[in-house]
Amino acid sequence: MNTHFSHITTLRVRYGETDQMGYCYYGNYAQYFEVGRVEAMRSLGMSYRLLEERGVMLPVSEFSVHYIAPALYDDELTITTVISGLKGPRLYFDYTIEKEGKLIATATTTLVFVTKDTMRPIPPPNDFVNLMHPYEQEQ
Amino acid sequence: MNTHFSHITTLRVRYGETDQMGYCYYGNYAQYFEVGRVEAMRSLGMSYRLLEERGVMLPVSEFSVHYIAPALYDDELTITTVISGLKGPRLYFDYTIEKEGKLIATATTTLVFVTKDTMRPIPPPNDFVNLMHPYEQEQ
Amino acid sequence: MNTHFSHITTLRVRYGETDQMGYCYYGNYAQYFEVGRVEAMRSLGMSYRLLEERGVMLPVSEFSVHYIAPALYDDELTITTVISGLKGPRLYFDYTIEKEGKLIATATTTLVFVTKDTMRPIPPPNDFVNLMHPYEQEQ
Amino acid sequence: MNTHFSHITTLRVRYGETDQMGYCYYGNYAQYFEVGRVEAMRSLGMSYRLLEERGVMLPVSEFSVHYIAPALYDDELTITTVISGLKGPRLYFDYTIEKEGKLIATATTTLVFVTKDTMRPIPPPNDFVNLMHPYEQEQ
Repeated sequence: MNTHFSHITTLRVRYGETDQMGYCYYGNYAQYFEVGRVEAMRSLGMSYRLLEERGVMLPVSEFSVHYIAPALYDDELTITTVISGLKGPRLYFDYTIEKEGKLIATATTTLVFVTKDTMRPIPPPNDFVNLMHPYEQEQ
Repeated sequence: MNTHFSHITTLRVRYGETDQMGYCYYGNYAQYFEVGRVEAMRSLGMSYRLLEERGVMLPVSEFSVHYIAPALYDDELTITTVISGLKGPRLYFDYTIEKEGKLIATATTTLVFVTKDTMRPIPPPNDFVNLMHPYEQEQ
Repeated sequence: MNTHFSHITTLRVRYGETDQMGYCYYGNYAQYFEVGRVEAMRSLGMSYRLLEERGVMLPVSEFSVHYIAPALYDDELTITTVISGLKGPRLYFDYTIEKEGKLIATATTTLVFVTKDTMRPIPPPNDFVNLMHPYEQEQ
Repeated sequence: MNTHFSHITTLRVRYGETDQMGYCYYGNYAQYFEVGRVEAMRSLGMSYRLLEERGVMLPVSEFSVHYIAPALYDDELTITTVISGLKGPRLYFDYTIEKEGKLIATATTTLVFVTKDTMRPIPPPNDFVNLMHPYEQEQ
């Protein structure tokens, strides 16, 4: 029985990421999820930097986030990234953010493999498909 | 028959908002929608700045965006903000972004009225409810 | 007697640009000065976007800012940008930020004309030099 | 003979921090230097978070940076932060950023101790002065 590929990374809320409510600004979570998925792909054996150098890009087409409790300045956050699916040119990620063991946010993104030349969708590179092979990819 | 309150604002993509793909970074749209709803509320007669000074805050609890086509550096974007609902402490907004008449993104947010003292949900202020009165608020 | 080319633009501090001190975060001024110089160049007749499309880039090599008083959420800021010099591949700008007629920040930047191919310094494009001709360029 | 207090921290350039030139946007370095000085103060035994909770704030009054070579996406940067001086309410930091052993940026900031109540300058807290005591503070 396969399971999804999952990866954990941590980061600290920067001062410049807070807003005058004293919360981490809701728009800054997008960078946290990006860090989560880049590190997840790196640990799977796929450098996003090298992917781009090969002419393949992965823009985000859908992004959805549920804010449960605020992240505050200097909080250490644990981001769990799950590669939840790969279907045609689309790559799906699920995320959770926890602080001190408490769930504070969940999110999902859809990314699309495109070629740098035309920015049109393309099938995922074979080496990425092979790296994903041991893992479940229902969607 | 009532209709939803709707407001249009324009802004230009800044250089620092692009990423190395040449797109406006997906995380920066959150600020654009915030500009949209702040200006929508201002045109309705409600200053978000004054609301905070009265001890009422409006953190975002849900945020969802669909990216249809990229926004590029220096593009002038037209953001249409619709106040789509008010239900208990929750305030719902829908957004579209167009460039040169073409739809490039849609989004929704849910915000929650909270009191600054405890950050617990509260009913919307009466003056805001009155301002919303002429408009449809189904949700 | 010539004078420097000068341009005024206004913008409003966004919520996401504040920090938990309630100030506009010190790092966000860089974007404001960039808006100032892009609009200054546009009003002079030079689109920075078109410049890049012609293979010429203008990275910043020096940036210095003096924060006199805070910019707060929703403040409308007046940015005055002066093209203070052009010397070899280097382009110099001076900036002031005012709110309600009061000076709250001053800054300077040095930018360098480089060619996209090699990112090496190049002389400024002739059409830019011609646009600058009526103005004083001591440095 | 005393020396300045110095601290090294590392971070990786995020995708959202690049611009369409493919460089880390010049405005994003401000956050990197902030991470540098917060971690320097933490390693000295002073939490900036706790400092604020005690009603003391440290806004930036001067910021100057020299960009020598670009930081690119996914580069791992080494930030060296030196507490270079403490004079009245003013705290001075010097910074360098290196990648792969090569210097790519230098910077300085001046911060001012202020009290949260009035945002007026105050002498640095005694415990901070004591922590600084072993180190040279000429300025």
